Amino acid sequence: MILDLKRKTKFELKPIQQRVEVTFNYAVHFTNGIFDLDNPLLAEVIANDGEAKPKKVVAVVDGGLLESRSGLLDQFREYCRSNSDILTLSAEPLVVPGGEAAKNNPQLLEDIHQLVDDAGICRHSYLIAIGGGAVLDLVGFAAATAHRGIRIIRIPTTVLAQNDSAVGVKNGINAFGKKNFLGSFAPPYAVLNDFDFLDSLDERDWRSGIAEAVKVALIRDREFFEFIADNAALLARRDMEAMQQVIYRCAKLHLQHIATSGDAFEMGSSRPLDFGHWAAHKLEQLTNYRLRHGEAVAIGIALDSTYSYLQGMLPHAEWQKILNTLRTLGFELYIPELTEESQIEHPRCLFRGLNEFREHLGGELTLTLLQRIGQEIEVHTVKISLYQQAISLLSDAKI
Amino acid sequence: MILDLKRKTKFELKPIQQRVEVTFNYAVHFTNGIFDLDNPLLAEVIANDGEAKPKKVVAVVDGGLLESRSGLLDQFREYCRSNSDILTLSAEPLVVPGGEAAKNNPQLLEDIHQLVDDAGICRHSYLIAIGGGAVLDLVGFAAATAHRGIRIIRIPTTVLAQNDSAVGVKNGINAFGKKNFLGSFAPPYAVLNDFDFLDSLDERDWRSGIAEAVKVALIRDREFFEFIADNAALLARRDMEAMQQVIYRCAKLHLQHIATSGDAFEMGSSRPLDFGHWAAHKLEQLTNYRLRHGEAVAIGIALDSTYSYLQGMLPHAEWQKILNTLRTLGFELYIPELTEESQIEHPRCLFRGLNEFREHLGGELTLTLLQRIGQEIEVHTVKISLYQQAISLLSDAKI
Repeated sequence: MILDLKRKTKFELKPIQQRVEVTFNYAVHFTNGIFDLDNPLLAEVIANDGEAKPKKVVAVVDGGLLESRSGLLDQFREYCRSNSDILTLSAEPLVVPGGEAAKNNPQLLEDIHQLVDDAGICRHSYLIAIGGGAVLDLVGFAAATAHRGIRIIRIPTTVLAQNDSAVGVKNGINAFGKKNFLGSFAPPYAVLNDFDFLDSLDERDWRSGIAEAVKVALIRDREFFEFIADNAALLARRDMEAMQQVIYRCAKLHLQHIATSGDAFEMGSSRPLDFGHWAAHKLEQLTNYRLRHGEAVAIGIALDSTYSYLQGMLPHAEWQKILNTLRTLGFELYIPELTEESQIEHPRCLFRGLNEFREHLGGELTLTLLQRIGQEIEVHTVKISLYQQAISLLSDAKI
Repeated sequence: MILDLKRKTKFELKPIQQRVEVTFNYAVHFTNGIFDLDNPLLAEVIANDGEAKPKKVVAVVDGGLLESRSGLLDQFREYCRSNSDILTLSAEPLVVPGGEAAKNNPQLLEDIHQLVDDAGICRHSYLIAIGGGAVLDLVGFAAATAHRGIRIIRIPTTVLAQNDSAVGVKNGINAFGKKNFLGSFAPPYAVLNDFDFLDSLDERDWRSGIAEAVKVALIRDREFFEFIADNAALLARRDMEAMQQVIYRCAKLHLQHIATSGDAFEMGSSRPLDFGHWAAHKLEQLTNYRLRHGEAVAIGIALDSTYSYLQGMLPHAEWQKILNTLRTLGFELYIPELTEESQIEHPRCLFRGLNEFREHLGGELTLTLLQRIGQEIEVHTVKISLYQQAISLLSDAKI
């Protein structure tokens, strides 16, 4: 069919409606001793891609991890040699600083791209990222933007990364003083959770990751929250079995949300998994990242739960149970930065975080609050005065 | 359900299989005089998002375009003022260099991110990109990576961008001396094709864009190729009606391919729309971008068609018709860079382009050749000697 353009007048050619559907499949695996020579998981994941072998592989490793696992790089190299029919380590692993520093230095992004180029990594090779959430966010962004997206296998090594950030579809780095200003949506090729890494976490990182589990339980799964509440003391004492339950269930809830929300790439304005996060993001910035993400999220959860209570939604007993659980886990629920500046015009005012959160999501302000434990509700306006009252309650550790 | 972890042994926790489906919808519109005050298209596209108005808007404009359309910025500002109930121009439009220079300067990417930050553009605001394919590639990448992807409305101003690059889902910039080394897949919010911009193209850019139409016709649509062949002389004389047909039909074929290939984000190794492109990309690099993309694609098409003929697939008469059509359109089918270096080890050898192409797509080499006009075939190995014979044929303008 050739158009009859003789009949065309101004503005008349019919628009072409395009609909693009893209499906991403990946698995989140659970294991121990991932680089033990008798652990087949990593090699199998690569072997099963159905393509000619061996495959080129490069790795980016969290420098913080190496402090407690100094033999890791040697073990990884040995694992690669021992599986040389399946994978070829095409360059020396790149070590990057751990923690938020990974996301604050744009040179690291370029270093990873350089590694990809030097090693001749293509869209069917593998970039293996080993580390905490911040490092995986950085490496994920680098992978998503090299050759328009190369395969990344994430090996998260912290509670937070294993149950939340590393199982999802987001990546990002900080820019212009804003958290995750640069980033994209890019599902991983696979996620391999090795519980053994959790042994090497310091106490703060062990605890931090539990905050996201509390969060998703509070908005989605009352039974799971009860489990966390019942095991809070055990978890604080680093009970590994309880922690494995928390990670598995939390990862599953996050994955279910992404798969069933109908908005995996967050084109709308609703983001229930960011319950407690508007304040958390701002507090991380206000403390210059002295506060770890999970610690900030715990305060954010406490704050938004208290606000939900003050608004007359969340019952008093449930509110108390939330605060008690967070405290039993070992979280501090008040820091001076909450009240440092009360004038919204001041850049260091906590409540600027509301608008920064809105701006990052886009569209109108959409906050998730609690009606009951396990039952979320969205609101589009909040009262600052009520939030100030909530902070005042949190400042009293006896509440 | 809480897991019975007592029963867990090493490697035993069941993997979680994740499936993420994402759907993108956008329209490609055709118009004239897009910033005429009585043209409602742009305002309507924004008005129809169903969200609170007015919306914040920023624009990035191709500096090359302003040379022939010096009043464009004033007209655009006036259009925004006249539709202030729907959109607010939140910052002065940013002008960037046109052509491949746009993709070779990483500072421009940062400039656009800075603009997004300065203007407080969120995921529900609009970045409007006005220009040729290279500028739209740059701005598309910036938009895809700011706040994990802000809305972009593409207003392509060249034949090539209107019928090919700007209607699709890809963006990118050059890095490490490689074309599109950095980039992502990110569908636009909308594409607005204004035919009036084509009047301001120089002869080379007018012609260049037709190469992609010849390409997609050759692999997909014999009838469309016949149309181009029949109208080649008219097109070379800048007949606007014939060009509009070419653009509409070519855009539609590209969009159909993306929607129905089952691999819109190119996770496999097959990329039929890159017929003729392995040589084209290399020739652009070898000529230091003296050759425009479409001019390089025309040579690539001629080369791969000649190879298809020499391999005994494409009939002699059809091969001749392809070369004649390209020549009638005004394309040169031979340049010295085709034979400059015959040793594959030399970085300037044309045939290095085969491996660079494979590496960018990933996996095994997959080239599209022609069985007949309108009928493609994929091959995974090629004979360099046959390609050398093909080049030798092309060097003889009488063939």
